[in-house]
Amino acid sequence: VKRYKIIIEYEGTDFVGWQRQDNGTSVQGLIEESIYNFSQEKVEVYGAGRTDAGVHALGQVAHFDLQKDIKTHKIRDAINHYLKPNLIAITQIEEVDSEFHARFSAKKRSYVYKILNRVPPAVLNKNKVWHVVKHLDIDNMQIAANHLVGKHDLTSFRSRHCQSSNPVKTIEEIRVVRDLDIVEIYISAPSFLHNQVRIIVGTLVKIGCGEWSLNKMEQAIKAKSRASAGPTAPPYGLYFLRVEY
Amino acid sequence: VKRYKIIIEYEGTDFVGWQRQDNGTSVQGLIEESIYNFSQEKVEVYGAGRTDAGVHALGQVAHFDLQKDIKTHKIRDAINHYLKPNLIAITQIEEVDSEFHARFSAKKRSYVYKILNRVPPAVLNKNKVWHVVKHLDIDNMQIAANHLVGKHDLTSFRSRHCQSSNPVKTIEEIRVVRDLDIVEIYISAPSFLHNQVRIIVGTLVKIGCGEWSLNKMEQAIKAKSRASAGPTAPPYGLYFLRVEY
Repeated sequence: VKRYKIIIEYEGTDFVGWQRQDNGTSVQGLIEESIYNFSQEKVEVYGAGRTDAGVHALGQVAHFDLQKDIKTHKIRDAINHYLKPNLIAITQIEEVDSEFHARFSAKKRSYVYKILNRVPPAVLNKNKVWHVVKHLDIDNMQIAANHLVGKHDLTSFRSRHCQSSNPVKTIEEIRVVRDLDIVEIYISAPSFLHNQVRIIVGTLVKIGCGEWSLNKMEQAIKAKSRASAGPTAPPYGLYFLRVEY
Repeated sequence: VKRYKIIIEYEGTDFVGWQRQDNGTSVQGLIEESIYNFSQEKVEVYGAGRTDAGVHALGQVAHFDLQKDIKTHKIRDAINHYLKPNLIAITQIEEVDSEFHARFSAKKRSYVYKILNRVPPAVLNKNKVWHVVKHLDIDNMQIAANHLVGKHDLTSFRSRHCQSSNPVKTIEEIRVVRDLDIVEIYISAPSFLHNQVRIIVGTLVKIGCGEWSLNKMEQAIKAKSRASAGPTAPPYGLYFLRVEY
């Protein structure tokens, strides 16, 4: 038996998310089917993190075990062959030792959230950005974001359905950058609560567009109540960027 | 009567191209319909350049005249409203004097051609890049491209259907750049022959992947025959970037 680590890119629009579910097509399920199609082995593919319906990935990581001994680049190409025409591709593959676990060995996860900040609608990046019409002040967004960096009880910034036993998380970095009319929010941490990035982005946009004052971020952190933070930003602006081990 | 200059972004996949045609939906036709829908005025929209089916635009330029006196940002928003859900948007609008002509006043046109250069297929940029598997040597591509800069008879680099009376064109700049697995080819000139950018890209890719030697570019220029140049690169990697006046 050999264990393989794969890096996966996907366009989340057509899927119910990463995780296998009864009600639709998942990225995990399609990769497992593709592996079965060329190897005849029923494997479980373990992802570094779940992504919701509509969320994209540039660098999701997963692992699985195979009995048959096949060259890594042939495994990659075979999976990609059977994944077509779904918008999912294995971009990298390597053999890892049997202790490696895509989820439990992960030290740091990074996301980027992309916003199109202009009046005209999204065209070339339709379904790939959140379209925000009001002008965003990224300096104010960065000041607000800095309050989140470090170890905090993030009860205000998790979905009411979040099943994590502990709402305390350590955010390592949040960086807000603008390139013409695209605003990007980079965020990295060892792990995240459900919807954490999207609720942080929703809150930063409220502050960036001037609807909320800067001190609302500190208030939201202290309040430990979902109602005190901003709305959950839509899934289609979010990209699972990278996992470090 | 006032004349308006508009800048247009579009995703070319679903259209027969810029120009109105009998056999399908054109960008020009949809913009003219949208203008009619809010103004009840039948106008002709003149573009700076035609683009083929599948070709995208970040900065196509056009002009049209309106009898009614309406604020420019309201014209932009009204056109964008009626253009939905087509992937076309007016990103900028300004009033110009009556001598301005989007096509005849243009001094310089710029395109970018985007290539995804890796083994795994295109996912997040599906229909937005040409997928080339063989590794491209961008230094060799740049050396070859430099032979095209300046004034040349570009008979080898135009479609057999090109209707231009004169195949002599002046290319101002070609720049080949790589960012990880994306190779971009920037090209600017006062004007272009039909399929010129795509045939140049097809030729540069033949040289970049090593199938053709570097001196094939000079040979192709001298031969003045379409057969001596490379294949026409697919439309979906091409973007009409900018027009200068």
